[in-house]
Amino acid sequence: MAPPTPRQAVPVDLKKKPWEQPLPLHNRWHPEIPPVTHVKAGELIRVEMLDWTGGAIQDDDSATDVKFIDLSTVHYLSGPIRVEDKDGIPAMPGDLLAVEICNLGPLPGDEWGYTATFDRENGGGFLTDHFPCATKAIWYFEGIYAYSPHIPGVRFPGLTHPGIIGTAPSMELLNIWNQREREVEENGHNSLKLCEVLHTRPLANLPSTKGCHLGKIKRGTAEWEKIANEAARTIPGRENGGNCDIKNLSRGSKIYLPVFVEGANLSTGDMHFSQGDGEVSFCGAIEMSGFLELKCEIIRGGMKEYLTPMGPTLLHVNPIFEIGPVEPRFSEWLVFEGISVDESGRQHFLDASVANKRAVLNAIDYLSKFGYSKEQIYLLLSCCPCEGRISGIVDSPNAVATLAIPTSIFDQDIRPKAGKVPVGPRLVRKPDVLRCSYDGNLPTTKNPAALM
Amino acid sequence: MAPPTPRQAVPVDLKKKPWEQPLPLHNRWHPEIPPVTHVKAGELIRVEMLDWTGGAIQDDDSATDVKFIDLSTVHYLSGPIRVEDKDGIPAMPGDLLAVEICNLGPLPGDEWGYTATFDRENGGGFLTDHFPCATKAIWYFEGIYAYSPHIPGVRFPGLTHPGIIGTAPSMELLNIWNQREREVEENGHNSLKLCEVLHTRPLANLPSTKGCHLGKIKRGTAEWEKIANEAARTIPGRENGGNCDIKNLSRGSKIYLPVFVEGANLSTGDMHFSQGDGEVSFCGAIEMSGFLELKCEIIRGGMKEYLTPMGPTLLHVNPIFEIGPVEPRFSEWLVFEGISVDESGRQHFLDASVANKRAVLNAIDYLSKFGYSKEQIYLLLSCCPCEGRISGIVDSPNAVATLAIPTSIFDQDIRPKAGKVPVGPRLVRKPDVLRCSYDGNLPTTKNPAALM
Amino acid sequence: MAPPTPRQAVPVDLKKKPWEQPLPLHNRWHPEIPPVTHVKAGELIRVEMLDWTGGAIQDDDSATDVKFIDLSTVHYLSGPIRVEDKDGIPAMPGDLLAVEICNLGPLPGDEWGYTATFDRENGGGFLTDHFPCATKAIWYFEGIYAYSPHIPGVRFPGLTHPGIIGTAPSMELLNIWNQREREVEENGHNSLKLCEVLHTRPLANLPSTKGCHLGKIKRGTAEWEKIANEAARTIPGRENGGNCDIKNLSRGSKIYLPVFVEGANLSTGDMHFSQGDGEVSFCGAIEMSGFLELKCEIIRGGMKEYLTPMGPTLLHVNPIFEIGPVEPRFSEWLVFEGISVDESGRQHFLDASVANKRAVLNAIDYLSKFGYSKEQIYLLLSCCPCEGRISGIVDSPNAVATLAIPTSIFDQDIRPKAGKVPVGPRLVRKPDVLRCSYDGNLPTTKNPAALM
Amino acid sequence: MAPPTPRQAVPVDLKKKPWEQPLPLHNRWHPEIPPVTHVKAGELIRVEMLDWTGGAIQDDDSATDVKFIDLSTVHYLSGPIRVEDKDGIPAMPGDLLAVEICNLGPLPGDEWGYTATFDRENGGGFLTDHFPCATKAIWYFEGIYAYSPHIPGVRFPGLTHPGIIGTAPSMELLNIWNQREREVEENGHNSLKLCEVLHTRPLANLPSTKGCHLGKIKRGTAEWEKIANEAARTIPGRENGGNCDIKNLSRGSKIYLPVFVEGANLSTGDMHFSQGDGEVSFCGAIEMSGFLELKCEIIRGGMKEYLTPMGPTLLHVNPIFEIGPVEPRFSEWLVFEGISVDESGRQHFLDASVANKRAVLNAIDYLSKFGYSKEQIYLLLSCCPCEGRISGIVDSPNAVATLAIPTSIFDQDIRPKAGKVPVGPRLVRKPDVLRCSYDGNLPTTKNPAALM
Repeated sequence: MAPPTPRQAVPVDLKKKPWEQPLPLHNRWHPEIPPVTHVKAGELIRVEMLDWTGGAIQDDDSATDVKFIDLSTVHYLSGPIRVEDKDGIPAMPGDLLAVEICNLGPLPGDEWGYTATFDRENGGGFLTDHFPCATKAIWYFEGIYAYSPHIPGVRFPGLTHPGIIGTAPSMELLNIWNQREREVEENGHNSLKLCEVLHTRPLANLPSTKGCHLGKIKRGTAEWEKIANEAARTIPGRENGGNCDIKNLSRGSKIYLPVFVEGANLSTGDMHFSQGDGEVSFCGAIEMSGFLELKCEIIRGGMKEYLTPMGPTLLHVNPIFEIGPVEPRFSEWLVFEGISVDESGRQHFLDASVANKRAVLNAIDYLSKFGYSKEQIYLLLSCCPCEGRISGIVDSPNAVATLAIPTSIFDQDIRPKAGKVPVGPRLVRKPDVLRCSYDGNLPTTKNPAALM
Repeated sequence: MAPPTPRQAVPVDLKKKPWEQPLPLHNRWHPEIPPVTHVKAGELIRVEMLDWTGGAIQDDDSATDVKFIDLSTVHYLSGPIRVEDKDGIPAMPGDLLAVEICNLGPLPGDEWGYTATFDRENGGGFLTDHFPCATKAIWYFEGIYAYSPHIPGVRFPGLTHPGIIGTAPSMELLNIWNQREREVEENGHNSLKLCEVLHTRPLANLPSTKGCHLGKIKRGTAEWEKIANEAARTIPGRENGGNCDIKNLSRGSKIYLPVFVEGANLSTGDMHFSQGDGEVSFCGAIEMSGFLELKCEIIRGGMKEYLTPMGPTLLHVNPIFEIGPVEPRFSEWLVFEGISVDESGRQHFLDASVANKRAVLNAIDYLSKFGYSKEQIYLLLSCCPCEGRISGIVDSPNAVATLAIPTSIFDQDIRPKAGKVPVGPRLVRKPDVLRCSYDGNLPTTKNPAALM
Repeated sequence: MAPPTPRQAVPVDLKKKPWEQPLPLHNRWHPEIPPVTHVKAGELIRVEMLDWTGGAIQDDDSATDVKFIDLSTVHYLSGPIRVEDKDGIPAMPGDLLAVEICNLGPLPGDEWGYTATFDRENGGGFLTDHFPCATKAIWYFEGIYAYSPHIPGVRFPGLTHPGIIGTAPSMELLNIWNQREREVEENGHNSLKLCEVLHTRPLANLPSTKGCHLGKIKRGTAEWEKIANEAARTIPGRENGGNCDIKNLSRGSKIYLPVFVEGANLSTGDMHFSQGDGEVSFCGAIEMSGFLELKCEIIRGGMKEYLTPMGPTLLHVNPIFEIGPVEPRFSEWLVFEGISVDESGRQHFLDASVANKRAVLNAIDYLSKFGYSKEQIYLLLSCCPCEGRISGIVDSPNAVATLAIPTSIFDQDIRPKAGKVPVGPRLVRKPDVLRCSYDGNLPTTKNPAALM
Repeated sequence: MAPPTPRQAVPVDLKKKPWEQPLPLHNRWHPEIPPVTHVKAGELIRVEMLDWTGGAIQDDDSATDVKFIDLSTVHYLSGPIRVEDKDGIPAMPGDLLAVEICNLGPLPGDEWGYTATFDRENGGGFLTDHFPCATKAIWYFEGIYAYSPHIPGVRFPGLTHPGIIGTAPSMELLNIWNQREREVEENGHNSLKLCEVLHTRPLANLPSTKGCHLGKIKRGTAEWEKIANEAARTIPGRENGGNCDIKNLSRGSKIYLPVFVEGANLSTGDMHFSQGDGEVSFCGAIEMSGFLELKCEIIRGGMKEYLTPMGPTLLHVNPIFEIGPVEPRFSEWLVFEGISVDESGRQHFLDASVANKRAVLNAIDYLSKFGYSKEQIYLLLSCCPCEGRISGIVDSPNAVATLAIPTSIFDQDIRPKAGKVPVGPRLVRKPDVLRCSYDGNLPTTKNPAALM
């Protein structure tokens, strides 16, 4: 009997450009992007993927590629994969697609990744008002471990996972997305007060033909033009899963995805060697190319059976997940807290995003006392296995968010200690992250107290 | 040699009213509330506490006490405790107070607790627009385990912790609190859009003499009147720690609190047998009376050394925590996701509170398929050891929040399964939670899709 | 509704001698020792117990009490407890008794314990040929943690458990025990080669009237005389459970005990704050008085259903256990290996006891390099949460045993390091354990290589 | 900068016989087997290996290959690898070699393994007196998971590790081995009573030219003849590490090996997808081919610094290990106990091997009640992640051993339950393991009670 070696369903060639791959990639969600392959339920397949930028970020000595990246092309996804049962009947709208991640990792010969922050004029990140410059850190892998020449003194095991896994939306669902996101884009500055505190831009990423890749659909055709104008960007997670960036979706996890189109049309990409909850720097995981070994099952009628829509239509659902059994094990955690009071001292009402921002800022300031630049810690907290919790969401007016950091990833004891007040210049961790200048005009947020 | 039995520093008498306790309780934060006892650094002490309502909620067959509760009196706190070093020199402003929780639990003879939601007219909770009625579930303890006659079929080990632990604010810090919270209370409805989605009220809890208890300060004196008009309510967590509701602050944890007044004036209360991240139903943990065994250390000058203020003054800091080594161990988790699109289908911008609300709603709907009422699950998710994460906070416009629930707390397998679509009437878990009618006029939020 | 506070089923009075307790204790196994109380299935009860020696070992500055201890009186057990179902029908022979340990801990006001080795002439321990002297270390508890003035620099959370829990044997089972153990006692020196390597004595502990306590049976009666001459000592674990010393039987564990007599007659004692696998120093756990909160269920006919006898009769069975969910969590372990070659270099055949002895000796020598005396480490490895495994038992002629030690219990990093060879005198951890002289004539085992 | 992709240091070709490999394999320990490659300290290398039999066991429908296997050829090892520091100076006798296992797994395209028991006339296993036949089960891998068509209803994540990793012995150490093992082989039947209970044979595996492979040393030369007559078999673990079968030496583990010859001459092999403590069926892990990614460091003078010899010479040492951070996580365990009383009811003195045997037999009988043959469970307990502990080793005359089995590997709930006594024929798990007849004359051990 032959063993069930994973079947190579979607290969990639690292020496080729994203648009030259043996099976064409896509970077939009649309029901009419045709499958590039199909798979039987229960079959173990291997899906390879480029990093989310398709190789735009290099293992070099500069952050220039980060600063000038064209974000209209992300994320390059592998698929769509059409899923059928053992009798050849495809997954149908209303089914649930249960995807088990049996294994995953970097592509052999490409064992490295990067973490970066974008320039404030080009996407920014969660703390872009504090850190407006483009920065980059390279990570190398030693089996399960990652280390970075740009963030010395830390090394940690990866909780590797795909940032994006999702099914194709139906046309009806796609229209819902485009409509609601357009409204934010157009009216958000007036109606959404979080814009005053969270400076990531744009407010939404609407369909655009620029940078668009649609797999087997040939650019220049009328079909391409139509779909490119409708197809949703892959930036946010949505009802189909997509860019959910759940760091625990690693080996042995199961993902129950709603099916909106015949065949399910599963796509995946954006592999992360490791990521912290929140992925705060935006390009914040250890981004890499990689492979997934997957197994799909179809739960017929599972959407009605297991998902309750939450919104005006039956399509307003979210996937369900099970976490796998082999996560890295940490015993000791140092925890930083934030409340929904912003840097200017202004009170927000039960706002977990503001509380989370303050928790991350607190952690950055604390850890930078141990010889690091703030940029080093900002990138580190984006990609190390830290846990970001909503601890309290009911005690008006403060939401309480916490960020828990495993202490064993550092080569020094980072816990507070009595009688250990250091004197003289602290050890500075060199070299620092790669960085560019910020040439924009937007003001940065200063922490007033830090200047005293 | 005598063993270092914990010294009984703060006793309570369960047969007495909160205002009759041997050492008087307090329910406000103010620098001038005098210490009721003092403790040496390194000394192991025992601090007892009433439940947060001081016994207002009873182990009976009705939720009426919940509906008509006077929230002006919460939380009843034990302390303040003045902390001195071995030479008798008190903790001073600018120090850090490291508090180790060596042990804790219910008070002997009082091994029960409750979880409740308040009436929408009287505080509500995270989902009060969906669940406007007052409800109550009683929990009994069998050693480490809790079970409820009102939520059959679940039993779980407690991750017991004090909801509130904090130091007294200085007058300067207190003024900051009162000013910023008054502004929300007064202008919030206009300026804060989250009010449209999160219906907990009031927006802030400002100082009030009603229900006020100030420990050794005698009611009726001019001093009492002055302090009562200034003292901050204990509802929200703030710079001094306070009501942070961090469910992992259990046995073996350490809390690094900033010191704002001479002696630190540590207070604690609001013991929880167990709580889920977020404590979503507001009275959402398994609330109980209890005891803490504590050990304090003073880190001289620790605020400057370890905390960076985040805001306009040097007082805008937050505590730091270390998690203890004996948390309950769960292997299998079912995870629900929410994105920042509300029940009406409206898109919010990177709003983790909205995403969290949707994740909780998704979990309630899913679990109610297994024979439970939605009210049962709402209370359960408030108090069981579920983990609420901010998974993605950068992928505009959607924040992604997740809620992970340990599957082993249920007496049935709650995971989705192929070919297991139940037929006929499902098992209904009876009895249900205790509940009152909602007599207010505010409209509830209907999930439009659930009605289809 | 009154909460189900545990009912005090078996109290002890620490100020009284073992034979003066309100409910009389016993220190033998016999079917005719009458129950001191009874309990209904499903009822939560509290059982208190003296330490195993009934208070013979004191919290003082000398190991003299250890050296001259009268071991004929151990272990003082609480019970027997007769178990009945809800209809009052007792557990019957052939049933399984499922005992859930809901909670446990030290007795309030008695928060201390001890670890000791006996004199080689009086019982010894696993390594008595290396360490023939009586030694003692006192441990104090700070909530979940233990520390010892005699073994500085370590502190660890307890995995507290009862060393002994068992049901009464039937007369037939008791006869089997006495016969097989008498044979070892009488012929063992000739027939059992392990005697040459494991020097603990006596080979078996046969019934003796000396030191015997039989609960409600009055000393001096004919009945007492008869039973005392038949009743089995409590030293070894046997078919009824008994002294199994399984360190993981802590909070939330379940024990499935065979029932041999009507009512099951459950007894328990020998509470350990913490113990390492093997309990190598014999008096090796952190021995203390304590309480258990228990719940019993009867599985009718469960012996036939779930246990297969292994031996010549249907009584040759062993209990089954389930481990609870709140064990202390350790991430980093240092592991020592032993193979079945003894200190003289002689090869043994697949002998896990010899391999385990060598692993423990290796660990002692290694850890003593970090400033400890070997006696300190010998006691430490008896009582800290180390794990002793049989890693390989098939690769002739060597069994491979391992001993894994959690590194975080030490206040220094005990892992091997390159370029960190210490120079000069090492830090010596003082004070040392309490110890007596060894006045016997038996030769000690020298590790020949250690002398080079 | 190029990322530090692991360098392929030792490749194997699965299509070739063991003696045709590009770098020649060896299956003996001897100081004069020349290195096949060398590696610098700090360098990440990849070492591939055949399964321990070099492909003798096939993925087919018969256990015949197991029954007639020629065990003189095992284990085929990759290496020796000479280790040098960054200046090219080799590891020297007296150093410690720290080997970090950065990653490991099955060879791509060969994702299967087997578990087997040998015929009693040809090696047997721990329970060969109960199970004298050759049996075999095939396992297939789905990423981190293994399942077997021959043991239906179980599936578990692998804790993959190399069964063998060791350094070359010096001539002096080799002589010690040969002498002590020869003595057992020649005199063991008379002097070692364990032979009566543990029936694995031969007692020792002495040097033999039959089946011998010595890497680069050409068969037929005088050098070959000399070395083959001296070289130690690889069956037992010894002072150099070797076949220690420690199931936790997986990703992220570190092994501190003593160095006895210049260059250390590291060899490794016998990859296990998963193994239970004890590896009780002898060919008991899930045996497979595989790869290791390793990193070596040299701790100069580390043997003297960190290892204390235990025996007559300075060479009587054992390696030290650190466990990695990504082991599979299990919450619920069912635990079986054994005491040192054998199947005939005879008492042994503190014999952990006998106690372990009884614990395993108890587990087999129990689990076979759930529809399995005993042979299925015997193989399963050899290879699933069960933990075999020495719980008590001091309570004369009984050693207490325990075997803990994670319950989640089964597709049914295997815990004892009240009122769940099954009626009628139980589900039988088919197909069963592959098996051969036993044609020998040795009597099997019958469990007398099982026949009643």
